[in-house]
Amino acid sequence: MFQSFAQPPIGKKLLGDRFARFAKALKDDDLDGYIIPHADAHQSEYLPPDQERLSYLTGFTGSAGWAIVMGDQGHLFVDGRYTEQAAQQIDPDNFSTVDVMATAPAKWLKTNLKPGQRIGYHAFYMTVSQVRKFEQACNSAGAELVSCPVDPVDQIWQEDGRPLPAKGRIVLQDDAFAGESAADKLLRLSQRLKEENVDSALLTLTDSIAWTFNIRGNDVAHNPVALAFALLKKHGKPLLWVDGEKLSNSVRDSLSNIVDIEEISNFEASLTRIASAGPTILIDADSCADAVRIALETGGATLIERQDPVIGMKATKNSVELEGMRRAHLRDGAAMVKFLCWLDSQAAGSLTEIDAARQLEDIRRETALADNSQLQEISFDTISAAGENAALPHYRVMEHHNAVIADKSLYLVDSGGQYQDGTTDITRTIAIGSVDAERKQRFTQVLRGHIAIATARFPSGTSGAQLDTLARLPLWLAGCDFAHGTGHGVGVYLNVHEGPARISKAGHVPLEAGMILSNEPGYYKFGHFGIRLENLVIVEEPHPIEGGDAPMMGFETITFCPFDLRAVDVDGLSVQELTWLNDYHHDVFEKLVHTDLLTQEETAWLSRATAPVIL
Amino acid sequence: MFQSFAQPPIGKKLLGDRFARFAKALKDDDLDGYIIPHADAHQSEYLPPDQERLSYLTGFTGSAGWAIVMGDQGHLFVDGRYTEQAAQQIDPDNFSTVDVMATAPAKWLKTNLKPGQRIGYHAFYMTVSQVRKFEQACNSAGAELVSCPVDPVDQIWQEDGRPLPAKGRIVLQDDAFAGESAADKLLRLSQRLKEENVDSALLTLTDSIAWTFNIRGNDVAHNPVALAFALLKKHGKPLLWVDGEKLSNSVRDSLSNIVDIEEISNFEASLTRIASAGPTILIDADSCADAVRIALETGGATLIERQDPVIGMKATKNSVELEGMRRAHLRDGAAMVKFLCWLDSQAAGSLTEIDAARQLEDIRRETALADNSQLQEISFDTISAAGENAALPHYRVMEHHNAVIADKSLYLVDSGGQYQDGTTDITRTIAIGSVDAERKQRFTQVLRGHIAIATARFPSGTSGAQLDTLARLPLWLAGCDFAHGTGHGVGVYLNVHEGPARISKAGHVPLEAGMILSNEPGYYKFGHFGIRLENLVIVEEPHPIEGGDAPMMGFETITFCPFDLRAVDVDGLSVQELTWLNDYHHDVFEKLVHTDLLTQEETAWLSRATAPVIL
Repeated sequence: MFQSFAQPPIGKKLLGDRFARFAKALKDDDLDGYIIPHADAHQSEYLPPDQERLSYLTGFTGSAGWAIVMGDQGHLFVDGRYTEQAAQQIDPDNFSTVDVMATAPAKWLKTNLKPGQRIGYHAFYMTVSQVRKFEQACNSAGAELVSCPVDPVDQIWQEDGRPLPAKGRIVLQDDAFAGESAADKLLRLSQRLKEENVDSALLTLTDSIAWTFNIRGNDVAHNPVALAFALLKKHGKPLLWVDGEKLSNSVRDSLSNIVDIEEISNFEASLTRIASAGPTILIDADSCADAVRIALETGGATLIERQDPVIGMKATKNSVELEGMRRAHLRDGAAMVKFLCWLDSQAAGSLTEIDAARQLEDIRRETALADNSQLQEISFDTISAAGENAALPHYRVMEHHNAVIADKSLYLVDSGGQYQDGTTDITRTIAIGSVDAERKQRFTQVLRGHIAIATARFPSGTSGAQLDTLARLPLWLAGCDFAHGTGHGVGVYLNVHEGPARISKAGHVPLEAGMILSNEPGYYKFGHFGIRLENLVIVEEPHPIEGGDAPMMGFETITFCPFDLRAVDVDGLSVQELTWLNDYHHDVFEKLVHTDLLTQEETAWLSRATAPVIL
Repeated sequence: MFQSFAQPPIGKKLLGDRFARFAKALKDDDLDGYIIPHADAHQSEYLPPDQERLSYLTGFTGSAGWAIVMGDQGHLFVDGRYTEQAAQQIDPDNFSTVDVMATAPAKWLKTNLKPGQRIGYHAFYMTVSQVRKFEQACNSAGAELVSCPVDPVDQIWQEDGRPLPAKGRIVLQDDAFAGESAADKLLRLSQRLKEENVDSALLTLTDSIAWTFNIRGNDVAHNPVALAFALLKKHGKPLLWVDGEKLSNSVRDSLSNIVDIEEISNFEASLTRIASAGPTILIDADSCADAVRIALETGGATLIERQDPVIGMKATKNSVELEGMRRAHLRDGAAMVKFLCWLDSQAAGSLTEIDAARQLEDIRRETALADNSQLQEISFDTISAAGENAALPHYRVMEHHNAVIADKSLYLVDSGGQYQDGTTDITRTIAIGSVDAERKQRFTQVLRGHIAIATARFPSGTSGAQLDTLARLPLWLAGCDFAHGTGHGVGVYLNVHEGPARISKAGHVPLEAGMILSNEPGYYKFGHFGIRLENLVIVEEPHPIEGGDAPMMGFETITFCPFDLRAVDVDGLSVQELTWLNDYHHDVFEKLVHTDLLTQEETAWLSRATAPVIL
C-alpha cells in the first residue's frame, strides 16, 4: 500500500524537551524569535521526512502551516480544516494556535513585534517573495529579520534522530512517454532565455527539473520527482545539482550527454562561483529559495525576476503526453468501475472508509498490471469519506477515526494513480442505499456545474477565472456555493497539482491548448454530507462551430467513469444537460468495454450504470 | 434638440496654417516633439469646445485619440472604429494615423525617440499615471519629457478664435433627489479621511464634485457636471474652485454654508499655498492632473495616492436615489414604448436614422413634461443605427451618412435621458418587417445572455468579471462573441458611465448593494447587422433563497420596455428563460400602464408587444 492509515508517531509525549532545547538555541543565537515554515528548499507540496521541521517541533502533522516562536512561546498558524487536529497534537504549554486565514504570519509579526527585536529565518526554506513580505512586516514594527546560517530546528533535530535525507532512485522518463527529448526541450529553453535576454535561469522546482531532463524521482510521497536544482544556460550545457547516490551508472551516463552533474551539497558554493562571472540570471521569486537569491546577488550576478520558464512549457502537453494521459485514464476508469461494481456488491454498512481505500488501491495496482502498466504511486492520499466526513473537502481517513460507510448516505471518493504514461485524479460521490431529496438536489446542482464546464466553448485568451462561475451558477441560484477552486492543472506522470492555469476566480492565466485541468465542483454541508464530481479535461485548440464567426476553444473530458444516476434528480437537468450525461455514459461504456479489463460481471454492472436516462 | 446631426465645422480647408504655426511654436520652445491628448484638466468624457485641442490641431473629431507631433510630422493615434473617419479628417501632409491598439503613444515614443530629444506635454491635460508611463518611455529612449507651462496648441489657438470657456449655470440638486445633504456627505468624507490617515483629499473629477456638493452643472454635453476642483478636509470647511460667474447669488449663498468658494483661475496658486503648510493629501493618480501633483509636491505637501474616496461612495446609491432612478425609468420606458409604437406605425423604408432619433428625443421631452418632469439632457448622443450601421457598436448618425431604416432589417437604438431624478440608458433592437433566421438566432443568443445576467444570484464579494461570462456563453457556444464589456456603472442624474464597478472581464471590483449597472450584451456582424439588448439593473443586498445556505446578491431590473418578440426564436429559449421573458413583459405592461402616460393606441400596442409567449 502506498497509503498509510496509521497515525504518525507524533504526540505530546514524544515531543519531549525539544521545545525547551529550541528556545535555548534561539537565546544562544541572540534571537528574539524564529519563523518555521512547512517547506523545503524546493517548496515541495509533500515534504521528505527530514524536512518536516514544523511537525518535529510542534507535533502538528497537517499539510500546511507556519510556526513563529517568540522566546519561550510558540504560535502555530493553521487554517480552519486543521484547527481541531492542531489542538490535539500540540503541547499547549508551548504552543497556541492562530487562524492563518484571519491573521497571516507576516501580519501577526507586524502587530506583535517590538522595536529592536531580531527574528530569525532560514533562507533555504522561504521564497524570495515570502522573505520580502516578512521583511516589510518586521521593518514596519522596527524589528529585524535575520537570515540564519544554520536552522535551529535542524540543529536540535540532529541530536534527536533526524531521518536521513531522501535517497530515491532517479529513472529516465522514456521519450516514448515524454514525447520530446530532453535535448530538444533544452534547445527550446535556450531559445527562450535568448528571448528573455538572460544568460541563464535557475530552477528550484522539482517538477520543472523532472520535466526538463525527462527524469523521475522518488524522494517525496505521490509526486514522482527528485530533489534537485538546475541552471539552464543560453549557451552551453546546463547544470544539475543532485545527490549522486540517486543515479545508477546508466542514468548518469545518459544524463551526462545533456547536462553537467554536480553534487547537491556543493550547491551554494557553486552559486557563488557562477555568480562571480557577473551573469544575468532569471529566478522565480515566488518559488525560488531566498538563499539562492542571496548567494547569487552577493556573488555578483544580476537577477531578473520572472516566472520559471519551464512552468508554461510543461503545462501545454505535447501529443504523446496527451495520448499517454488518455490511455492512463481508460485504465484508471476501468479500475474505478471495478471498484464501484465491488462497492455496490457489498452490503450497506459493512465497509469502513479504510476498507474502501485499500480495495481501490489494490484494484488500481492489479488493473495496471493487467494492462501491462504499473501503478507507480497514488496521485495523493485517497480521500475516502463517508457521510459527514465528506463535508471536509480535504478529509483524510486514519485508523483512529475510520467511519463506516452507512446506508442512506453519500460516500465521496477522490483518488488518482501515477502511471508512467499519465497521472489521474477523479472524484465520484456514490449513493449508498437510497438518498433523500436534499442530497439528490445538491448532487444534481453540482453535476450541472460540472457539465457547464465540460461543454463550455470560449475564445482564445479566456482564463479559468472567466469560466469558474459556470461551475457555481446552479448552486448560487439555490443559495449555495463551494469554498474551493473549480479546477487545478495536472502534470503527466508528475505533480497532480501544477500551475500556471487553474479554474478559479483568481486564475487569470489564459487557458492554452494542451493544458490539462480538473473539473471538480462540489458542495459541502458541514456535519451532514459532501459532494464532489471530478473529471480531468484537456484544453482543446480553437476549432470552428458551424455557423459561427470564430473558432472556439473547449474541453475534452478524458476521465471515463459513470456518475451515480441514483443520486441524480433527473427533473433538475435541462434537455441539453441530460443529453450530455447520456452521451458521456455511452462513451464511458464503449471505451471501458474496449479496454478488455472488465469481467463479465463488471461489464453488466457498467451497462446498468450507464444506461441512458429517458426524460 | 440636444443632439446635432450636422458635421462639425472642421475639414482640411479650415485647418489653414495652424499646423505650421504649431510646428514653429515647438521649435521656438526648443522642443523636438509634443504630446496632445484628448482631455481636459478633469479627464472629462465629453470635452467643452475650448478644450478640443486634438480636433483643433488635427481636424479629427472622434471621441478618443492622441497626437504626437515630432518636428513637422504629426502622428494621430486612433482605434479601429475611427480609422476611416480620421483618414478623411486629417491633412495627410501633416499627419499620419497610427493604430492605438497595436501601438500606444508611450510605446511609440519608446521606439521612435532619439537620445537627447525633448518631448513636451501640458501637465494639466495628463494624469499622474499617464505622465509616469510617458516619462518611462522617454527615459528608456534617452529622451526627456518636459512639462510646458503654456500649451503650444492653446497658444496658437488664441490667435485663431478659440471658443470661450464653458459658463454653464450651476444648480443645486435638491436633497429630495439626492437623498443625503451635502453636509452629511462631507461628514462621512471627513470620517473617511480620518480612516485613510490624510489631512485632505484633492478632487478633480467633476462627477465626484457634483455628487459631494449636491450640485449639477452645464459645462459639457450630456454629463450634468460643472468644471471645478475641490479639496476635502479631515477638519474644517472644504474648498471648491469654480468660475464664480456660474453661481447665482442663491446658489452661492447656499454653497457657502458648507464650502469655501475660490476662483478656479487661482487654482494652481492656491495649491502652492495649501501645500506650504506641509499637509498629507490624497490624490488619485489615475485621474488627477499631473499639474496638481507638481504644484502640491513642489509646494511641500506629502501625497498619498489612492482612489478618489467619492467614487466608491457615489456608486452605492441611497434609497432616495434608487427610488428616483426607478421613477425615471418608468417615465423613460413609457417614452420608449411611445417611440416603438410610432415606429411600428410607419411604413418600412419611410424613415431615416435621423428621423427616428429626432422623434425619440421629442417623445422623451414631451413624456417628461407630461410626467411633471423635464428632459434636462440626453444621456449621450442617440445611437440610431439601421442595418449594417448597427454593426458599429459606437455608430453615430450624421446628416452626410444617414441611412434609411429598411424593410427586412434590424434597427438598433441605444439612448437615454437625463432627468432630475435619474439617468437612463436603454438599447432595443427592432425587427423592421420580417427578419431572417440568422438574425433571429443571434438576437435570441444575445437575449439569453441578457437574461442570464438579469437572473443571476451570487455571493457577496463577487465581481463583475465573475459574471461577464454568463452574458457571453450562449454566443460562445455558437462560435460568436461581442467586443465590448457587458455593463458599466451609471450615475443618478450624473454621468451615464461611472466607476468603479463594471461587468467585464477586467471588472475586478466587488459588486455592492445599491450600485447601478447596465446589462447590455450584443452581437455585431460587420457589414451586415448589429444587436444589443440593454436594461439597467440595481445590485441587490444579499437575500435568502429558500432552502439555501447563504443569502445571495442579485439584480433588480429597472428598465421597463418590451424586447421585440418578432426577432426571437422561441425554440432557442429554455423554459426558465421564456418564463423570465413572459414575467418581465407582464411587469412592463403593468408598470407602464400605471404611469398614465400612454394613449389608448399605445396601450393596445404594448398589450400586443408584451403578450405572453406560449411554448
